[in-house]
Amino acid sequence: MEKRAVVLLSGGLDSAVTLAIALSEGYGCRALSFRYGQRHSVELASAEKVAATLGAGEHCVIGLDERSFRGSALTDDIPVPKGRSIDPDTGEIPVTYVPARNTVFLALALAHAEIIDADAIFIGVNALDYSGYPDCRPDFIRAFETVAALGTRRGREGRPFQIRTPLIDLTKAEIIRTGDALGVDFSLTTSCYDPDGGGRACGMCDSCRLRRAGFEAAGVPDPTVYRAEGDTP
Amino acid sequence: MEKRAVVLLSGGLDSAVTLAIALSEGYGCRALSFRYGQRHSVELASAEKVAATLGAGEHCVIGLDERSFRGSALTDDIPVPKGRSIDPDTGEIPVTYVPARNTVFLALALAHAEIIDADAIFIGVNALDYSGYPDCRPDFIRAFETVAALGTRRGREGRPFQIRTPLIDLTKAEIIRTGDALGVDFSLTTSCYDPDGGGRACGMCDSCRLRRAGFEAAGVPDPTVYRAEGDTP
Repeated sequence: MEKRAVVLLSGGLDSAVTLAIALSEGYGCRALSFRYGQRHSVELASAEKVAATLGAGEHCVIGLDERSFRGSALTDDIPVPKGRSIDPDTGEIPVTYVPARNTVFLALALAHAEIIDADAIFIGVNALDYSGYPDCRPDFIRAFETVAALGTRRGREGRPFQIRTPLIDLTKAEIIRTGDALGVDFSLTTSCYDPDGGGRACGMCDSCRLRRAGFEAAGVPDPTVYRAEGDTP
Repeated sequence: MEKRAVVLLSGGLDSAVTLAIALSEGYGCRALSFRYGQRHSVELASAEKVAATLGAGEHCVIGLDERSFRGSALTDDIPVPKGRSIDPDTGEIPVTYVPARNTVFLALALAHAEIIDADAIFIGVNALDYSGYPDCRPDFIRAFETVAALGTRRGREGRPFQIRTPLIDLTKAEIIRTGDALGVDFSLTTSCYDPDGGGRACGMCDSCRLRRAGFEAAGVPDPTVYRAEGDTP
């Protein structure tokens, strides 16, 4: 029988590479994306294109009640910081952190995984560049794996789900090189936290800066369309 | 400042008593209920009445995509078993188990808890009568508490959320006596997995049998309206 996986797909670069890795390992994949009131919902159109282009068997876009996602620059009327990056060593958590978001996403991925009898859940978290987010760190992922083992029929029957994080220890440049080798079309992906109506990237938020520097370091051409500096979003 | 809690409220007896306990401890409560395609969605009307009557400050009913809740007699076209109870000692998981449901509910409760800066999440799980459900057991709850501590800003800042399960070791009779003492109007609650259109209980599913036996053992009058045996649902 084909081995199956549920893959969290945001429409960003990291999750596209994660999906490509899962497919390259021979998993039949159900990609899951979420509409949760994110201001950068243009990423959902990207997710759709990425899933179709890479050949994920299924792609579900799940609508979530926006009242459950508040208190973040990604969902509320809080400015997205520009021109600075969080120093991972300070332990500071960025204002773009969305309360419990990855816990909710993993919980829904777990429900889908048990329904389709998937062996694994793939999530493109990265502890190196984004260590500011509590729900991207290895200890959180391992804790969720325990929840998945104890809270499901399949786990209790001795066939626990793997929570796979193939990018967790990679630099952005390594992620880009990996995706490049697997044929990911990065022009379809959206990383910007604050894109304009046409989906053009701001070039200045944390996410844009990491992405741009990653392409430079990887020596891979950056296909991102940035809007001119000074443009209003 | 008032201490706050998020309370999972299904509309059943156990969660009504749980909400009464949280309120009796002085918590300002946001009650959360979910519409997930459950065949017994009449419980949502019960949840609304229970929240209003007990005086929960807020009650949110969250709609969830039904594709995430499948493979259970509570959501699919699988008959609800009648006239038998699971023997907790066999480790058998009932067909009324909904894949990963409590993980999803707790994850969303966690998001709400972080948004309103609640100290605690209350969930009315019970390990004694319902030990068949993997996501009602103490080890699962403790594992989720670790996820909540590691996956949130508040947890990382050293103010972890408590996952409170005041009913976990009580018998159904003890739960009913506790609720009775706290003034819970049990006539507003719905436990049946397979109610008819008017909300009348079948009297024969696991949930009805436990409830009915609990009232008898507690010596508290059972206000449940059962439909006549042989009625079609």
